[in-house]
Amino acid sequence: MYQYALLIEYHGGGFVGWQWQQDGVSVQGALEDAASKLAQNEAPTAVAAGRTDAGVHAEAQAVMLELDRNLPPGKLRDALNFHLRPHLISVRAAMIAPDDWHPRFSATGRAYRYRILNRPAPPAMDAGLVWHLHHELDADAMHQAAQVLVGQHDFTSFRASSCQAKSPVKTLSRLDVMRIADEIVIRAEAPSFLHHQVRNLVGTLKLVGEGKWNAQRVADALAARDRAAAGPTAPPEGLALVSVTYDPPINWDFT
Amino acid sequence: MYQYALLIEYHGGGFVGWQWQQDGVSVQGALEDAASKLAQNEAPTAVAAGRTDAGVHAEAQAVMLELDRNLPPGKLRDALNFHLRPHLISVRAAMIAPDDWHPRFSATGRAYRYRILNRPAPPAMDAGLVWHLHHELDADAMHQAAQVLVGQHDFTSFRASSCQAKSPVKTLSRLDVMRIADEIVIRAEAPSFLHHQVRNLVGTLKLVGEGKWNAQRVADALAARDRAAAGPTAPPEGLALVSVTYDPPINWDFT
Repeated sequence: MYQYALLIEYHGGGFVGWQWQQDGVSVQGALEDAASKLAQNEAPTAVAAGRTDAGVHAEAQAVMLELDRNLPPGKLRDALNFHLRPHLISVRAAMIAPDDWHPRFSATGRAYRYRILNRPAPPAMDAGLVWHLHHELDADAMHQAAQVLVGQHDFTSFRASSCQAKSPVKTLSRLDVMRIADEIVIRAEAPSFLHHQVRNLVGTLKLVGEGKWNAQRVADALAARDRAAAGPTAPPEGLALVSVTYDPPINWDFT
Repeated sequence: MYQYALLIEYHGGGFVGWQWQQDGVSVQGALEDAASKLAQNEAPTAVAAGRTDAGVHAEAQAVMLELDRNLPPGKLRDALNFHLRPHLISVRAAMIAPDDWHPRFSATGRAYRYRILNRPAPPAMDAGLVWHLHHELDADAMHQAAQVLVGQHDFTSFRASSCQAKSPVKTLSRLDVMRIADEIVIRAEAPSFLHHQVRNLVGTLKLVGEGKWNAQRVADALAARDRAAAGPTAPPEGLALVSVTYDPPINWDFT
């Protein structure tokens, strides 16, 4: 089998998530199906850096594709994109995988972006790509409260019950909240995240933006180590995986 | 009848265009249907600043809605948005129409934006919102050639055969082409445009970006006053109406 590294983009709306499931179309399944059109004998397999949930988007998901065929990477990219139609999955770049590279275990950092459309009018052009919140949120208060969460902590309060990570201790490198016109954009960076962690952080910061919670209440929720102490889970459609980093970095070829 | 000014946003993908047609759903038809849920006796009517074609989007289309009911503008906005679901049309702002205001005839300027996704990989997140062109275009050459078209000219070469304007002479105030990462963004501003004018300008500038045409060839195409002398019509999905201006300006209330 030949190992390829892919950088892919997808609109999460039509998928049950990254991972293959019995019911519904997964990103993994659609990608493996497209790759199987190119395979000779063996079924191709795809492994991703982050197993995004149903409805969550990716601008830059890193994937290792194993395929029993030796193809120039640019041809592989174009052939996969051809066979992926009409799925909203796009292979942005392909290359021969570096030696000993694993998209998930070799990753040193992940970045997610969460978009809130914060205005009375619902989205039209961006429907399915943002969380629409009618009433004005205080982005500065959200940003200040977010700083309480940065650093190494036990994030049990922000972890889905289904989370399979061995430890709830994670290091949040960055959690920035900024207003850009009528959007509130939240950027979260960490070496790795717990299941639903970003959406649970966003659902909690929303309470701060509404003035219902302050930074101390967020600190208390973190200290409680109890999912019930934090805010609700924000919906998936505002979330996108925007970068995965490796050391040494991967020099993707976009030409 | 009460006259309201609306600022609306829509995703053109699902519509036959702004204007009501026998077959298919128009933006005008969907908006009038939503307004009819609020009407008492008379059928509401909607008139727009620009009659966008099938597939063309709007971020800021100005509309006059006539309705036989006196409603606070914020309530009208929210009620229309409620009844517009699941259409991808959003009323961003509503107000009592200024005296003697006509959305089309009072407009002093229009701005359109055309987005080209210029990379080998097709769009996923932005599918339906960009024109995908695989091979690299020279945005600087496109911008320079575009300047030949700025000013008052007979734009017969860039006018659809179906165009109903009395004169082909228009004043193009601005035609800027800029590369932003893997996108080429074209912004066109004029007091008013001919039918298909922006898409025909973009289809011609694409030939310049590919190196097939130079600025002189664009000047020759303009001088020919013959549609066959210019380039093909760019597809609708990259185009959006992004602003309509009035004098005095309208102070839309987005709160």
